[in-house]
Amino acid sequence: MTMIADYVAAHRNAFLQELIGLLQIPSISAQTNHREDVARCAQHLTQLMLASGLERAEVIPTAGHPIAYGEWLGAPGKPTLLIYGHYDVQPADPLNLWTSPPFEPAVRGTELYARGAVDDKGQVHVHLKAVETLIKTSGALPVNLKMMVEGEEEIGSEHLEEFLRTHRERLAADVVIISDTPMLQPEHPAICYGLRGLCYMEIIVEGPAQDLHSGALGGIVANPAQVLAEIIAKLKSPDGRILIPGFYDKVRPLSREERKRLASLPMTPQEWLQLTGSPRLSGEPGYPVVEQLWARPTLDVNGIVGGYIEEGAKTIIPAKASAKISMRLVPNQDPKKIATLFERHIRQLVPPTVKVAVLNHHGAKPFYMALDHPACKVAAGALAEGFGHPTNFIREGGSIPFVNTIAELFGKPCLLIGFGLPDEQAHAPDEHLHLPNYFTGVAAMAEVYERMAALRSA
Amino acid sequence: MTMIADYVAAHRNAFLQELIGLLQIPSISAQTNHREDVARCAQHLTQLMLASGLERAEVIPTAGHPIAYGEWLGAPGKPTLLIYGHYDVQPADPLNLWTSPPFEPAVRGTELYARGAVDDKGQVHVHLKAVETLIKTSGALPVNLKMMVEGEEEIGSEHLEEFLRTHRERLAADVVIISDTPMLQPEHPAICYGLRGLCYMEIIVEGPAQDLHSGALGGIVANPAQVLAEIIAKLKSPDGRILIPGFYDKVRPLSREERKRLASLPMTPQEWLQLTGSPRLSGEPGYPVVEQLWARPTLDVNGIVGGYIEEGAKTIIPAKASAKISMRLVPNQDPKKIATLFERHIRQLVPPTVKVAVLNHHGAKPFYMALDHPACKVAAGALAEGFGHPTNFIREGGSIPFVNTIAELFGKPCLLIGFGLPDEQAHAPDEHLHLPNYFTGVAAMAEVYERMAALRSA
Repeated sequence: MTMIADYVAAHRNAFLQELIGLLQIPSISAQTNHREDVARCAQHLTQLMLASGLERAEVIPTAGHPIAYGEWLGAPGKPTLLIYGHYDVQPADPLNLWTSPPFEPAVRGTELYARGAVDDKGQVHVHLKAVETLIKTSGALPVNLKMMVEGEEEIGSEHLEEFLRTHRERLAADVVIISDTPMLQPEHPAICYGLRGLCYMEIIVEGPAQDLHSGALGGIVANPAQVLAEIIAKLKSPDGRILIPGFYDKVRPLSREERKRLASLPMTPQEWLQLTGSPRLSGEPGYPVVEQLWARPTLDVNGIVGGYIEEGAKTIIPAKASAKISMRLVPNQDPKKIATLFERHIRQLVPPTVKVAVLNHHGAKPFYMALDHPACKVAAGALAEGFGHPTNFIREGGSIPFVNTIAELFGKPCLLIGFGLPDEQAHAPDEHLHLPNYFTGVAAMAEVYERMAALRSA
Repeated sequence: MTMIADYVAAHRNAFLQELIGLLQIPSISAQTNHREDVARCAQHLTQLMLASGLERAEVIPTAGHPIAYGEWLGAPGKPTLLIYGHYDVQPADPLNLWTSPPFEPAVRGTELYARGAVDDKGQVHVHLKAVETLIKTSGALPVNLKMMVEGEEEIGSEHLEEFLRTHRERLAADVVIISDTPMLQPEHPAICYGLRGLCYMEIIVEGPAQDLHSGALGGIVANPAQVLAEIIAKLKSPDGRILIPGFYDKVRPLSREERKRLASLPMTPQEWLQLTGSPRLSGEPGYPVVEQLWARPTLDVNGIVGGYIEEGAKTIIPAKASAKISMRLVPNQDPKKIATLFERHIRQLVPPTVKVAVLNHHGAKPFYMALDHPACKVAAGALAEGFGHPTNFIREGGSIPFVNTIAELFGKPCLLIGFGLPDEQAHAPDEHLHLPNYFTGVAAMAEVYERMAALRSA
């Protein structure tokens, strides 16, 4: 550990400059005019892979943006790790809300500001520098290591599954490590073992053939915006429970042990509230905040629109109104089944004075990994050693659809080991990375690789 | 009557061509780039006034768009009529929904298609041609006549009250005739004796400091769009009654006589439904359709918006959501008092988990005129004679704020005699005017002027 720590300490500036170079490439996967930048970023990453000591690295095309792939297979008989990250980033607008330009990385205090700093280039770079550190200090890696860094995570990982199926043999591994999740607090490492699923629906209520004059014809027809509001109001009880019949049927209760473990995590309700900026907390009664966030399903209006929404006043009865409504799901809820229950409930609430359409945008299954696999225990111990604090076992309220894809396809443990923090503005202006987490992360990840060598290989 | 009818019959084409010329001017008061067109239209109108036989006509400037004013005062000792109309028009977009261009008037069958055809240039022109007909057939008008045609009706008549106050002496009259309302059916004349008032509010609900990731932070804070929907749902009972405490307190019940009269009007509920294009009727229980439309107050969501409203899906909890909500008022509801009751009710419905703002956009008092004034009876008789059908006494669901201004300022009867039809698409693409109503209207209005001569002058 001392050699590792010494190497990292001696190369802090070199690591940082290299990361800054990676962050300067505006690899925005959603925007066609950045297609060349995305391709350039994949190419650049393979160069960094080779420079960090991987034996081979190549840009592998997909039907969309390419995947940067590298490997080091010089430890026969030892376990193989498959590392996942992504090099594409979210769009940077609104640009005027950035303190410094999103693709001109800037260090202010302990923070590195840039689009992609935490999501996810900085986390990818932790692995690259852990590889470099081990190879430079001991001449080899203690395990076999494969690294795939995709370019479409921010637009739905559309071609990842095909890539995984096509290259299944080549990607074979004993343990998958995915680095795209947060820690709860600086210097407190975390392994995420659960993600919520998603069921994203839309309701469209139609009434009059066109917008009506609310004076000339107001009083004799149902108002689609009013009807929509009444439907939405009936989706939840006053205390916030979801009223869709059967919605909670498959929800697996937490074990006493898990509840106890979650209750011991360091974030206070007040700290969670501060992350939201809301006037006060408002969650499902009877559940602590982290359970409300990670282990209980939710229903939220993501968007609603109908009628006149510009400045000032216009006296119309809108012809239609619509709402996008999504539900976060927990084990063992199934997104398709929930979509059916949702639509059935909506249709029962709609009066005959309007017409309604219910759309199913997309869904994702919840993810849950048992903590008793040896790889999980080994990683937790190594991270605790590296950071000097016990590893928190956390869950995440969001959904990462490809995690299920990987877990189901490989049938191997998927460790979600991330180095972000909840307030680092991923997807927002002034995205940043807490550099102490990054540097400690490099050393801790090297420690993870080392200890993984003791696992039995399949 | 025969001379009048003969003159109109002989000049149908000349009348129509002159009206087409007036409709060709795109006098859109709301759009700055049409300012010159608006001014040109006022000028053109004064030329038509003089050509029709008025003694004097002039363009009178206001702080906004000017007023075209004309008069004929050659009947000393006889009553004086003040005619009101407006020459400005609504914007014409969406242009692609017009069958023929909005400012290239086109006759198809019995209809004249153009922006402003019915609202309100066609109705103004009815008066001009009634004046011409009387002067050409008998050399003089039977009454004194003043005509003011404003250029800001479609943008709120902002400078009308100042104009009325400034020129109060000059505008003095015994009876005011306002032509900007519909008849119920072709060839069935109507006098409108009531308008609903208006109270236009907006509710803004704010929760998180910014849009939140609905996965990462969903489950612990109130969703402003959900809260807004719950508030709106509580504004009305399931059967449509408005639940704001005190809302109905000042509503004056209809007399048995008025209910009976309204019940005898020709439009069927099915015909009203067809005007809306809604799946079915839905109004306050216990009231016939015309009472729901004209004599009962309403509450409608005019617009609602919050969160992500573009194509596809975005998983956020919106930082805010807002709704524009307006109420149509009936005698003796007061818009200011109703605004206070509304805001008080909203504040009682808002949970402490969000913040709320309540805005009062604007209001208008309801208008109601007693039908027993001799001018009303005389006009009704003349119109019935002119159209060959009894005059319907109707009310209107909409609000025309300046009607109260005129009625209160002059203290004289205001007769709302209009020649439009409910399906003529005022404010919408393919606005049109039923030409038989126009031509018969000219002759009938000449008859109204003639019979008004018998009234006592103040």
